[in-house]
Amino acid sequence: MANYSEYVAQMQRIADIRNAAAVLQWDQETYLPPKGAHFRGQQLSTLSELAHGQFSSEHLGNLLNELLSSTTLDETQRRNVELSKEDYDKNRKYSASLVRRLSDASNTAFHSWIEARRQNDFSLFAPALTEMVALKKEEADVLGWTGHPYDALLNEYEKGASTQQLDAVFTDLLPQLKGLLDELLAQPAADDSFLKQQYPADQQWAWGLHLLRQLHFDEGAGRQDRSEHPFTTSFSPQDVRITTRIDEGDFGNMTWSTIHELGHALYEQGLPAEQYGLPLGEAASLSIHESQSRLWENNVGRSRAFWQHWLPELRNWFPAQLEGVDADHFFRAINKVQPSLIRTEADEVTYHFHVYIRYSLEKALMDGSLQVVDIPTWWRESYQEWLGVTPPDDKTGALQDVHWSHGSFGYFPTYSLGSLYAAQFFATAGEAMPGLEEEIARGNTAGLLGWLRREIHAHGRRYSSDALCRKISAQSLSSAYFIGYVRQKYSLG
Amino acid sequence: MANYSEYVAQMQRIADIRNAAAVLQWDQETYLPPKGAHFRGQQLSTLSELAHGQFSSEHLGNLLNELLSSTTLDETQRRNVELSKEDYDKNRKYSASLVRRLSDASNTAFHSWIEARRQNDFSLFAPALTEMVALKKEEADVLGWTGHPYDALLNEYEKGASTQQLDAVFTDLLPQLKGLLDELLAQPAADDSFLKQQYPADQQWAWGLHLLRQLHFDEGAGRQDRSEHPFTTSFSPQDVRITTRIDEGDFGNMTWSTIHELGHALYEQGLPAEQYGLPLGEAASLSIHESQSRLWENNVGRSRAFWQHWLPELRNWFPAQLEGVDADHFFRAINKVQPSLIRTEADEVTYHFHVYIRYSLEKALMDGSLQVVDIPTWWRESYQEWLGVTPPDDKTGALQDVHWSHGSFGYFPTYSLGSLYAAQFFATAGEAMPGLEEEIARGNTAGLLGWLRREIHAHGRRYSSDALCRKISAQSLSSAYFIGYVRQKYSLG
Repeated sequence: MANYSEYVAQMQRIADIRNAAAVLQWDQETYLPPKGAHFRGQQLSTLSELAHGQFSSEHLGNLLNELLSSTTLDETQRRNVELSKEDYDKNRKYSASLVRRLSDASNTAFHSWIEARRQNDFSLFAPALTEMVALKKEEADVLGWTGHPYDALLNEYEKGASTQQLDAVFTDLLPQLKGLLDELLAQPAADDSFLKQQYPADQQWAWGLHLLRQLHFDEGAGRQDRSEHPFTTSFSPQDVRITTRIDEGDFGNMTWSTIHELGHALYEQGLPAEQYGLPLGEAASLSIHESQSRLWENNVGRSRAFWQHWLPELRNWFPAQLEGVDADHFFRAINKVQPSLIRTEADEVTYHFHVYIRYSLEKALMDGSLQVVDIPTWWRESYQEWLGVTPPDDKTGALQDVHWSHGSFGYFPTYSLGSLYAAQFFATAGEAMPGLEEEIARGNTAGLLGWLRREIHAHGRRYSSDALCRKISAQSLSSAYFIGYVRQKYSLG
Repeated sequence: MANYSEYVAQMQRIADIRNAAAVLQWDQETYLPPKGAHFRGQQLSTLSELAHGQFSSEHLGNLLNELLSSTTLDETQRRNVELSKEDYDKNRKYSASLVRRLSDASNTAFHSWIEARRQNDFSLFAPALTEMVALKKEEADVLGWTGHPYDALLNEYEKGASTQQLDAVFTDLLPQLKGLLDELLAQPAADDSFLKQQYPADQQWAWGLHLLRQLHFDEGAGRQDRSEHPFTTSFSPQDVRITTRIDEGDFGNMTWSTIHELGHALYEQGLPAEQYGLPLGEAASLSIHESQSRLWENNVGRSRAFWQHWLPELRNWFPAQLEGVDADHFFRAINKVQPSLIRTEADEVTYHFHVYIRYSLEKALMDGSLQVVDIPTWWRESYQEWLGVTPPDDKTGALQDVHWSHGSFGYFPTYSLGSLYAAQFFATAGEAMPGLEEEIARGNTAGLLGWLRREIHAHGRRYSSDALCRKISAQSLSSAYFIGYVRQKYSLG
């Protein structure tokens, strides 16, 4: 048992360093004065090197091996040690040199992406991206792969993910979705012009905070600030920060991004604090994390039931803007489906096409069947093929996402997986709690949150995404739930 | 030269960790949600242990010794290495155990101080303080001392400070000040009731920011936030944060604390960024730091000249509150002298008595001539003796300062030294720039700031407090400047 305590102490020290870095990153996105960027970057690199160094020490490796062969651990302790050992072995594959080269390349690529966006010219980003792709191939080889080099990177963001699995998911999902999309586009378009009226920033801010509180965001253990791009970060389950942005001419922007981040934050606040620094104190996976944000944003936050309670209240906040907008009009507007160029502004249905285009593009980059210089052409052709729209320039095309500049190849698919898990979990919750919809329609989401806490949040990383899904819904991920959810929402046969 | 680069890299890594800790502390005072305190404390301890560990490594010690015997360093490099070696040797005296015990004791003492204040009962703080005093005696012995154990602690905050030096300073200063105080109290009291009217928080905030900008605070390299107690912190010369508090019923509270923190911030923003992480990139000492805050707050910010420019503008911000208040009335009100119980609210003249009482009390604690349980009695008698006032309870008595709970024994005297240095520097600046007062009266403080930048800020820690003072004013610290300044301000003969 003495060894287990030492393991906990070491893991908590590493978590302390990583969480300190997370505070510095949060500050960077919210409050950092512009000239502070240079030394802040250096401070973050130092913390990252320190955490990497401590998490690859021989001493920790020996400790983990001893604990794995120990017979005195209980089930929870054993699971922590197993997962830490997996993480440790993976971390050890990264040499200090590779860590530094990845960090440098990401720094270079980020600034070149910013500049390329400013000049609306992908070719300015191409050299840094080419370098990054080469490094990611090296990383894939270092991590090891059998089927496809991209598998190694996918695994970084979603354990067990592979091109084989994702090809199967998209091959199943996309044709059904294409059919649904054609049906939806044949219907008259929803009028969402009232969402684009003037909504004063102060009122939006107050409304967002009110919503967060009512939906059980614990303000004693978190806060909301503003940033250019909304995100959620956590320094412990007792300090979870979300950010939002406010566009006075677009009410939807702030409201559903706030509910989305709320979903992430409720998950983080629901992780067991006594497992701080240990795998069982961490989220199960990125896709499960995304299932929580999307469940609240879409399955709850764009439902008729939810707005049955909230629309009357919203009218008190914005009476002029909502004049003459009835419940049906509101519901149709906030669920408007329309093929578009920008992923982050896409509706629930077309969103998966945006993800698939990126997924297949990254896959082709990794196996060498696509070169960086050919990305803009591939991008235009894919958008035309899947969504029937063509970006007029690079900013609304292949330069729109920050991910590649950070070296995040393999991240996008977790968004689609999250959306599918959300539909499956929400359907299962509905079966487990027959009165759920009525509860939500009365403005009571405590029951749903309690269910998510018990079924998902409390377990941390104990179960893999798939194991968790099977435990909750008695089957692996199935697109049937999402398709059924869309059919029902849009009253399709 | 290769060695010097390695030294710089190591020192910068240590600075990165310390600055990361400073970000976490800043966040703790400004934005941390209440439940986040527990893990935040742990994260700070981890960073502090890491920095201490890196700054006491054998490797760094060897590197410093090699560099000291090198003949290829230029003067600046040599000075950096000398100072780092001093710091290193001092840091090495602290065992990991002592560091941890001091950190634990400070954690315990802080919470017990909070509780004692809440219950207004010094006896609740006494056990933790007794433990802290014992530890500080141990620390003094570890650091080493010859004259008086308190000397070792004084040296921690002000290199070269000793009871001998400070006894001399106060023995010289206090009788003169007592005489001045008696003269001042014989005059009719200034009417400062207009300062206690209602000044709306939003307007105070905007006014404070306006003042900061006009007084050359670089908002590109810093920002202002709110906290319970105003402070300045810096994560690099390019990221300097100040905080303020706003009391709607007390205009002076925010305004002069903002100018005070501005003085600290201008110093930090003026330190040479290319010396980041090295001694020459750090402030000379705490007393010199305090000289900058007090010079701006008092010598500039409470002068007739300053308000000749600013009062007309202030009237536009707060016309109702300032109605019927002429320049002379305003000047007398903001310089009102009145013996009082609370150090942080004391005027410039009585302030030194508050410091002296703490100084002599700490000295007696350290040599054992005073026991912790007897502090409240000592406190009451000292306040009666020096200021003619007696605290009715512990909150307005010996429980008013946070310093002891942090283990900061020997810190208070730097406030008095700073005030004396401020007067000496400001007088010297006036001699160097004959039109200075007129410039200030025209609202132009750029010349003064330029002088401070050249004479003080640019040098970092190159000179000791005393050496810097002699370099600037051709003599060591002398109370004559402060006494002269007070005599002139209050038109005393």
